[in-house]
Amino acid sequence: MREVTVPLGERSYSIAIGEGLLERRDLLAPLVAGRAVAIVSNVTVAPLYAARLRAALEPDAAQVIEVLLPDGESHKHWGTLQTIFDALLEHRFDRRSMLVALGGGVVGDMTGFAAAVYQRGVDFIQAPTTLLAQVDSSVGGKTGINHPLGKNMIGAFHQPRLVLADVGCLRTLPARELSAGLAEVIKHGAIADAAYLTTVERDLPRLLAHDPEALAAAVARSCEIKAAVVAADERESGLRATLNFGHTFGHAIEAGLGYGEWLHGEAVGAGMVMAADLSRRLGLLDAAGARRLEATIAAAGLPLRGPAWPAQRYLELMSVDKKAERGIPKFVLLEALGCACVRRAPEDEVRATLAACTA
Amino acid sequence: MREVTVPLGERSYSIAIGEGLLERRDLLAPLVAGRAVAIVSNVTVAPLYAARLRAALEPDAAQVIEVLLPDGESHKHWGTLQTIFDALLEHRFDRRSMLVALGGGVVGDMTGFAAAVYQRGVDFIQAPTTLLAQVDSSVGGKTGINHPLGKNMIGAFHQPRLVLADVGCLRTLPARELSAGLAEVIKHGAIADAAYLTTVERDLPRLLAHDPEALAAAVARSCEIKAAVVAADERESGLRATLNFGHTFGHAIEAGLGYGEWLHGEAVGAGMVMAADLSRRLGLLDAAGARRLEATIAAAGLPLRGPAWPAQRYLELMSVDKKAERGIPKFVLLEALGCACVRRAPEDEVRATLAACTA
Repeated sequence: MREVTVPLGERSYSIAIGEGLLERRDLLAPLVAGRAVAIVSNVTVAPLYAARLRAALEPDAAQVIEVLLPDGESHKHWGTLQTIFDALLEHRFDRRSMLVALGGGVVGDMTGFAAAVYQRGVDFIQAPTTLLAQVDSSVGGKTGINHPLGKNMIGAFHQPRLVLADVGCLRTLPARELSAGLAEVIKHGAIADAAYLTTVERDLPRLLAHDPEALAAAVARSCEIKAAVVAADERESGLRATLNFGHTFGHAIEAGLGYGEWLHGEAVGAGMVMAADLSRRLGLLDAAGARRLEATIAAAGLPLRGPAWPAQRYLELMSVDKKAERGIPKFVLLEALGCACVRRAPEDEVRATLAACTA
Repeated sequence: MREVTVPLGERSYSIAIGEGLLERRDLLAPLVAGRAVAIVSNVTVAPLYAARLRAALEPDAAQVIEVLLPDGESHKHWGTLQTIFDALLEHRFDRRSMLVALGGGVVGDMTGFAAAVYQRGVDFIQAPTTLLAQVDSSVGGKTGINHPLGKNMIGAFHQPRLVLADVGCLRTLPARELSAGLAEVIKHGAIADAAYLTTVERDLPRLLAHDPEALAAAVARSCEIKAAVVAADERESGLRATLNFGHTFGHAIEAGLGYGEWLHGEAVGAGMVMAADLSRRLGLLDAAGARRLEATIAAAGLPLRGPAWPAQRYLELMSVDKKAERGIPKFVLLEALGCACVRRAPEDEVRATLAACTA
């Protein structure tokens, strides 16, 4: 088992990475002993893994309930969150209760947000079952739901007490979702660690074949990179924004298509190609670097181009991005592979990128 | 102008108390200069005060919008909160935006919660226009909304950047609401400061006559008491629970009747009589102290008895109180006037209090 610590003072927590972690009563007991516990999952994941997790929790918890959500980004809204609150209140869950998010990023974001605001805050554990959630949404404490006018517009920073990244769960992950997770893995290399990007390029065949050792190594290194960035900037005032590489364009694609049409990682894949193109146009990244990144994204099985919308539509969608200030979006750009910066870009250069990188 | 500081490290803020504060551009400018500002108010308060506040904000803010909510506790739910989010997103409000809560506790709790979760947290200012909000809900950072199964069950701790307690606004406050605010004033004396309780008893005629000097003095002392308690225990793990004196019974009354039927302060008035009775039965408070507190609550124009429900109904309603652990409620009790403690109580004693103190 690998372990990565996210150092956030009294909110520090560990990410355990390996196979079979959902059955590790020894990891769970210190956090759930004597407490009421709610496993929050969705109708796809729960039949696969909830029984194993429940068996590991029941000897120590005072009570274990399961809350089943519908599957998919399109359900990441307040109505679904109410399902969680209703169950917690019906079972008289108090402030000492523990929620456990068992599923992908949507389950994690919603469960984390429910934990952040239920009775003004209770503890929660993340048990991410997708590669995307293991490398990205389980690290950093971002929780939230979507609004019809923007993704993750309602939420909170709320750190989990523990993350159990069981790479054994990735065996059942559809190929399309595995690729979507690799988008974030590639992103971590691109923004912070050129050597890691090289390793990922080399290991892509094993990663795409669900090799648990290659996956555990990638999850661990990606979590280390993200943990280091988050620890330096928990509330996202500066450095942390670099983790949004590919996301300004990517969020526009997701918002414009309607959430759930493309997977988040697919939108980030195309978004990274666009951000690399913009970086090149602004004289930051060289053409070879942009080509190499695009080739890696292609090899991971991700889309390379955004939908064929007029530039104005992209610009409007990006103006409500959370990184925008007074409607002017900021972009995470690459100065080189492994080195990111955040800045505004002239609109004509953004339009040139949109013309070049949409279908 | 009086000023009380709430010392919470980097989240410290000031409470300004006096007449005409809504017009004080000098107090607002440092916090709103160059920012988009949303005045969030309700249909009753906005016609009285929003124009004055807007005039004080507009010279310095980048933009000022108004968001009007329906009036009353029955609207303190997610649907109403959406009105705020919709307006902020339609006007492209970003993370640097400032919300200003202009109204009573319901407006303050909802605006504070909206600020806590909009784009994972933006700044807000409280401009409380009721006595209850000035002495209670504007201090301490508790924000939230109700759930059909419990009051304030969904929320966050989110501190305002500034509180403007303009006692001039209390002139338009209906007598019933003034009395409801005095319930919290009496509570602060009862739990923490016997000399203040004596002052309040003496000043009750002036307070009930809307005397601005008497009101400003009471608001300032109540805020000092609450600020000291909150500073010692921001997340409500111990001492802060004493501020819930009268609230365990009071919340049961509010939840059982349906929110908004009684004013919060009215339920707390009857709840304090019940908590004092329970304190006496448990050998803590002497009979003279309990009688004196009841007489003060009566003189303030507040109800002294809860609705005539079976004890079982009260017990069930109290078992979902946020202070409850595994369904067993804790009570804030008085050891003497000016001195509170938190403990469980034998159910037969609670039943005796319910038999004695319900209509």
